[in-house]
Parts: sequence; structure tokens; C-alpha cells
Amino acid sequence: MRIGAIEAGGTKFVCGIGNEEGVIEDSVSFPTEHPEVTMARVIAYFQEKDVDAIGIGSFGPLDIGPTSPTYGYVTTTPKPGWANYNVLGELKQSFPVPYGWDTDVNAAAFGEAKWGAAKGLDSCVYYTVGTGVGVGIYSEGKLVHGLVHPEGGHVLTRRHPKDTYAGSCPYHGDCLEGMAAGPALEARWQVKGHELPANHPAWEIEAFYIAQAVTSTILMISPKKVILGGGVMQQSHLFPMIREEVRRNLNGYVSAEAILNLIETYIVPPELGNSAGLCGALALGIEALRDL
Amino acid sequence: MRIGAIEAGGTKFVCGIGNEEGVIEDSVSFPTEHPEVTMARVIAYFQEKDVDAIGIGSFGPLDIGPTSPTYGYVTTTPKPGWANYNVLGELKQSFPVPYGWDTDVNAAAFGEAKWGAAKGLDSCVYYTVGTGVGVGIYSEGKLVHGLVHPEGGHVLTRRHPKDTYAGSCPYHGDCLEGMAAGPALEARWQVKGHELPANHPAWEIEAFYIAQAVTSTILMISPKKVILGGGVMQQSHLFPMIREEVRRNLNGYVSAEAILNLIETYIVPPELGNSAGLCGALALGIEALRDL
Repeated sequence: MRIGAIEAGGTKFVCGIGNEEGVIEDSVSFPTEHPEVTMARVIAYFQEKDVDAIGIGSFGPLDIGPTSPTYGYVTTTPKPGWANYNVLGELKQSFPVPYGWDTDVNAAAFGEAKWGAAKGLDSCVYYTVGTGVGVGIYSEGKLVHGLVHPEGGHVLTRRHPKDTYAGSCPYHGDCLEGMAAGPALEARWQVKGHELPANHPAWEIEAFYIAQAVTSTILMISPKKVILGGGVMQQSHLFPMIREEVRRNLNGYVSAEAILNLIETYIVPPELGNSAGLCGALALGIEALRDL
Repeated sequence: MRIGAIEAGGTKFVCGIGNEEGVIEDSVSFPTEHPEVTMARVIAYFQEKDVDAIGIGSFGPLDIGPTSPTYGYVTTTPKPGWANYNVLGELKQSFPVPYGWDTDVNAAAFGEAKWGAAKGLDSCVYYTVGTGVGVGIYSEGKLVHGLVHPEGGHVLTRRHPKDTYAGSCPYHGDCLEGMAAGPALEARWQVKGHELPANHPAWEIEAFYIAQAVTSTILMISPKKVILGGGVMQQSHLFPMIREEVRRNLNGYVSAEAILNLIETYIVPPELGNSAGLCGALALGIEALRDL
């Protein structure tokens, strides 16, 4: 069985071929340009690869409502050329196979649930904190879609008492993404995040916002694992700070062993590392084949 | 088919008998006292009723993990006698039938999804705002359990700029329940909520907190319907205030018709009214029979 996988990111695309065990056998990566250019490269890559199905985890917002007339489209993105672009339709013309189609973060959550940090569990939440903040949710053995799809990067925040930064989100100002994504870090301190030393006060504020969102996520949907990925989370000293702040926030209210005594194995980095997205797309492809 | 239903509330218990169409044929209600007293009344009610299954929606926190050794217990409640009380075990001794067991709010969400405001939809969120704040979540056709179960009443809040009230939650102070439940309203204004006129500033603050939680819920799990019940929501003038504030919070970010143009039918009171909990318990009982 040869499954195609596409991690369609706002900055770069990764295409690969994998098998049912989650092993990526081949992959390529290229920058995200105008859709005509980028999709031509995607199609060229899968040409003669003879795939049985293709899974796609895409940047959004997307239409993932199976009965919607614009199912398979990227919808309201400001990215030039991509607004209301029919990704799935374009691919189907070249490769008439079953397709899995979901958000990049739902794909990453699914990949981690199948082969990574949440392996064997029927629920997990995947946060990516990078250029933006995205959240993928796997709950009761299913990826959560709902009315549109989770957009947990934009939840409202309680402000850190020492933080006067207005927030960078054009929609909400000081929502989670507006306060904690890479651009917010950079705007607040006037220096790239990775140039700030581990003992810089920036990280206490960063951990405060991420922990706040994780706390509300735990209270809201009670995931069995919280996975934090993305560029900002490469700063691994954030993990203990976030765990401590989450435990302080919850204050013993959720009496689960995983939180009270094993939080180091509860709030974790992605086990699939940078491959979480591509592996997740692979998992979506496998699922599409099974759902036939 | 005769299905037993139990709405096990912290203040009162409601027991009933219903059928597969969601019709409650008989019911009784009594105050929640010490478990020996209350459970004896429950058992007496179902005696000779010859039920095929029983569904229970209970106050919590609960153990709803099917493989847990304490599945069926109420766990860490401060309610005298109920902490670590084996509700399900007690009932099973008298009635050896299949059981459905979930939180009171999950049951209400399920009832509304089967026969009420979210009928025909595969997702909804049910908030109860009363003595406390509870949240039930039905997503992708399943009730959400996860690590423990949703405890969305305790999410952290951003403070209303004119609100100086410290918050009434013994765990978190100014979490949602601490700021918006009935006791918080009463403590903030020194008068019972229902005695405050509709134009009192109390309601703007109340709507602010509830709308904040609803906004984050929409962003986080994208439900197809948001149902707001409980004693505080009997103040029906809160609905337009909450809808307006949610729309202001989202600021056009979630481009769904239901939110942009039909929010009056998206954020709604329970259609089953006060029967949501009992109907939900009935639905859990029916499900238990189907899952055999």
C-alpha cells in the first residue's frame, strides 16, 4: 500500500509517500507560493508514484464539512491566490483516489495519536505555537470538526500583570495568538525569540499565556495528552514553566494522576517532532482508504 | 421498552420512566440528602417499574472511565456522604440492567442533541449557569469524556473592566463559575439575581463573562449549537446581550453563517427546558441498551 501525504503549510509544503505503519519512505519540501506554482509541484511529485490514497493536512481556514459545496477549499486566508482555492478539486483531477482532508493541526494531532506521544489514547490536543497558534483536537477517537473547525489559537486571554503589549492579532488584538505567537514575542521584545536567553523575563510571560490556554483546554475537553509543538516550543525550557503554571492554575481541582503527579508525561513535545504534520497527513490518507 | 432515567442533581434528584421517543411517562422529584436516604428513594421508585435499562446524569465530579475500578462513583464532592460514593454499584444491586452513566451536563447536551435544540446535529455544547457552572459537550456524535470529564465551568476569565469582585470559587477565585454563577451574582450585588431589574449593570457584567466562555468554546471546539440553561439563564434578557458580545469578541473571524447572520438560532435556551437533564438521562439509558 502506498499512501500519499501532503503537509500544506502557509510557509512550505511537504509531500511524501508512506506506508500503513506510519513510515515515510520519501519526501520533498518546497516553499508555498501562488497556488498554480505550488500545486503544479505537488502534482508533479505524485505523478507516477501510483498512490492508493492521499491525505492532506492544510493551513486554513478550510472547508472540511463533507456535505458543503466548497468542501476541500482553503477559504478566507489573506495568502495571495489561496482564498477560496479548491485544493482537493485540483488534486482529484490528476489523481482519482480517496482523499483525507483536514486542518494541519488536526492532522498533527491524529499523527501523534496514531504513532507518537498520544499513541494508544483516544484523545489528545495538539498546539502549534509558531508564526501563529493553531490547535488540533482528537477526542473520543475522532478528530473534532464541528461547525467550521477548531480555531483555538484565538481564544481570549487574561493579561499577564507585567505585560503591556497590545497584541498582534488583527481580529482580536490580545487573543492567545496575538500574545504568544512568534511575531508577538518579537514585537514585545524587539528581538527574535530564539535570541532571548532562557532566563529572560520574556519566557515567564510566554509560559503564562500558553499555560492559560492549556489550563482552559484541560478544563474544557479533558484531553488525555497535551502536545505542544511549533517553532516557539523549540525553546524546551518553556515546558517545565508551562507545566508548573498549569498546575498552579488548576490548583488541585482536576484530581487526575496525570496532572497531579505525572504532568511531565502529560504536557509534552510532539514525539514525531517535525514529522508530526506529514505523518498526520499520512494517517488521514490511510483513514480515507479504510472509510471506503 | 421502558427506560429508567435519573437526573442526580446536587440539590434534587429527579427519577422518571420514558420510552425510546424521548417521552417521559412518569416522574418524581425529591431533595438530595445523605446518599442512604436519597438512594433508598431512588430504588423504591424503580421497584416494580420493570425497566429495561437505566440512564443517569449525575452531579460530580464523577468517575466515568469505563475501565476504572471506581467507575460509577461520585468522587471528590464536598457534599456530605457523597464523596467516593458508588452510585452505580448501589443501583446495580437492585436492578441488574444495562446502565448509562455520565455527567448531568453531558446528559443534558445529549438530550438536546436527540430531541431538543440540537436535534439532528452531531455536535453541541450545553452550559448550565446556576448554583455552579457546568458544561456538557457532544462532539462528532459522541459525548466528550477524556481524562476525567469536561469541567468547563472553571475556565479562567478575563476580568470585566468595571468588576472588582474577587470571585467565589474556592479553587480558582475568579474563574467562570467564580464570576458568573448565581452565588457570585448575589455576592457582587448583595441581592438575589432574580431581584435585579433587566436594566441593572449586573447583567452587562454577567453577559460579559458568559459570552467570553462561549466565545472561547466556539473557537476551541466549534460546536454546531450553543445551549445555555440553568437558573441564571432564566433571565432571558441575557440572551441578546450574550449573542452581541460573542459576535463582538469573534469580530468576524469565524466566517460561519450560523454566527454571522443566524446567531439568534445558534446561541439558544434548551428546547427541552427543565426536562433537558431527565431526557438526557433517558437518552443515556437508551444508548446503554443499544450498546449491548
